[in-house]
Amino acid sequence: MPVVDFWFEFASPYSYVAAMRIETTAAAKDVTIRWRPFLLGPIFAAQGWNSSPFNLYPARGKHMWRDMARICSTLDLPFRRPSDFPQNSLIAARLALIGSAEGWIVPFAKAVYATEFGEGRDISRPDSLHAILNGLGLDANSLMTRARTDEAVKSRLRASTEEAQSIGIFGSPSFVTEDNEVFWGNDRLEAALDWASGAARRPG
Amino acid sequence: MPVVDFWFEFASPYSYVAAMRIETTAAAKDVTIRWRPFLLGPIFAAQGWNSSPFNLYPARGKHMWRDMARICSTLDLPFRRPSDFPQNSLIAARLALIGSAEGWIVPFAKAVYATEFGEGRDISRPDSLHAILNGLGLDANSLMTRARTDEAVKSRLRASTEEAQSIGIFGSPSFVTEDNEVFWGNDRLEAALDWASGAARRPG
Repeated sequence: MPVVDFWFEFASPYSYVAAMRIETTAAAKDVTIRWRPFLLGPIFAAQGWNSSPFNLYPARGKHMWRDMARICSTLDLPFRRPSDFPQNSLIAARLALIGSAEGWIVPFAKAVYATEFGEGRDISRPDSLHAILNGLGLDANSLMTRARTDEAVKSRLRASTEEAQSIGIFGSPSFVTEDNEVFWGNDRLEAALDWASGAARRPG
Repeated sequence: MPVVDFWFEFASPYSYVAAMRIETTAAAKDVTIRWRPFLLGPIFAAQGWNSSPFNLYPARGKHMWRDMARICSTLDLPFRRPSDFPQNSLIAARLALIGSAEGWIVPFAKAVYATEFGEGRDISRPDSLHAILNGLGLDANSLMTRARTDEAVKSRLRASTEEAQSIGIFGSPSFVTEDNEVFWGNDRLEAALDWASGAARRPG
């Protein structure tokens, strides 16, 4: 079965939409998804941005929030704009990498996004992450300690972010096929899956 | 019949795709399209950009050109990346406004986009615009003179660009419904038409 890497940054609104629909959409097209957390902050910083482009360019930000409300309404997804944006996603991203090794990354990532953009809560708060981990039946205290202190986990996240940047990823969500086609944006999910499964027409 | 304003900048690659498919897509959903040329340059300049974001942010530009090739391949649209980007669209935009008053804006705009992104030619060149106007059976010499000198046409384009900015438009293509919903991007065309025709679910 073809594999598509789903690169996601927890602070990204459109990645919430992608995360909530990618498993069923990919299954329908017989594609396996590999969930790849990374941080956009260093990539944005490298191009001179010290915040989200949705904050730096207010007209674009205004459109994004309205567009998110419309898309979530169409897909029947809960949506609540968080008061803090963008949120610090460092600990959540490290937890996701632990979950990737231990087999619980998908429900964890979906729960983080649902907390942040479905309920409008702050995922940088330890109590938010504790509640999510407990809700999955995991040992929240031990995992939070590892996410804060485990050097192997820290360095894996740095390596993932560098890998994303080296592939040419500049935003989230991004979908990358095994032959290194990069598709950026929730609205490119179907195109990426079609490419991976061989259903897409290739440019000449 | 509901009306959607199609705001377009001739220098914009994704607007080529939108221009080539908007009439048939809108007709299928019983929506009338009003073609609204404007200039992105002053809007970009107001947010500190002196060129296209696709040039200012090379990773984004690289993705866009590859994405354009993929989309055009999927839609069976000719695509050739022009050597000059972005192209100066001032005279073409003024001609489009004359065409709007005289009833030939749609075939003119489609021919400009096809020349620029289907054939990869430079639409800032007078010979390109002459050929397009002649191909439509229009008086190219007289129209080019008007586009260069007619103060009413110049001021109409300035007013259109100011109107776009005041609506919150920050990119091309943008689609705006009669109740002032702004949808940015070729991939939002269907959502805009569904909103206009009453088929879309409204956010609560």
